[in-house]
Amino acid sequence: MLHALSDPMRLQIVRELAAVGDELSCSHFDLPVTKSTTTHHFRVLRESGVIQQVYRGTAKMNGLRKDDLDGLFPGLLDALLDAATRQAARLGGA
Amino acid sequence: MLHALSDPMRLQIVRELAAVGDELSCSHFDLPVTKSTTTHHFRVLRESGVIQQVYRGTAKMNGLRKDDLDGLFPGLLDALLDAATRQAARLGGA
Repeated sequence: MLHALSDPMRLQIVRELAAVGDELSCSHFDLPVTKSTTTHHFRVLRESGVIQQVYRGTAKMNGLRKDDLDGLFPGLLDALLDAATRQAARLGGA
Repeated sequence: MLHALSDPMRLQIVRELAAVGDELSCSHFDLPVTKSTTTHHFRVLRESGVIQQVYRGTAKMNGLRKDDLDGLFPGLLDALLDAATRQAARLGGA
């Protein structure tokens, strides 16, 4: 899981999912990488247990497994998201 | 910092430093990797700001920058260490 969240793109995906608090389709995310790289990041997140992916109609929806993660590693996800927010603010980003 | 802590060997180094709560020499750590790999891990930890390295006599001592990390990312280090402990217990390790 730490490996999964150590990549800036993957951390950004997780931050967006956490901020929305709902499932988002892959196409929702506008990352500055190729589509195949985006697909790779989603697979890493799914295989590490950070997100779940389900098909709804023709869309593949991504949901953060917050409850599962909080159960396994209490406080970790919130601390990571908080750290990412502080880091982004420090760098002048969003 | 997340990248630095996403490697199992580096996380183990940080866990030992946190458990001891004091500086440790590089030679204290008995990691199942080559000496040059160990040196690499210590460099990554230092360059990412997780540890500081100082020479005391002829020994290079490593110290966890806990206060700095806690200031930058409140709760993150403790949550990571707790997660690592739970993970290790789950895997039947130490």
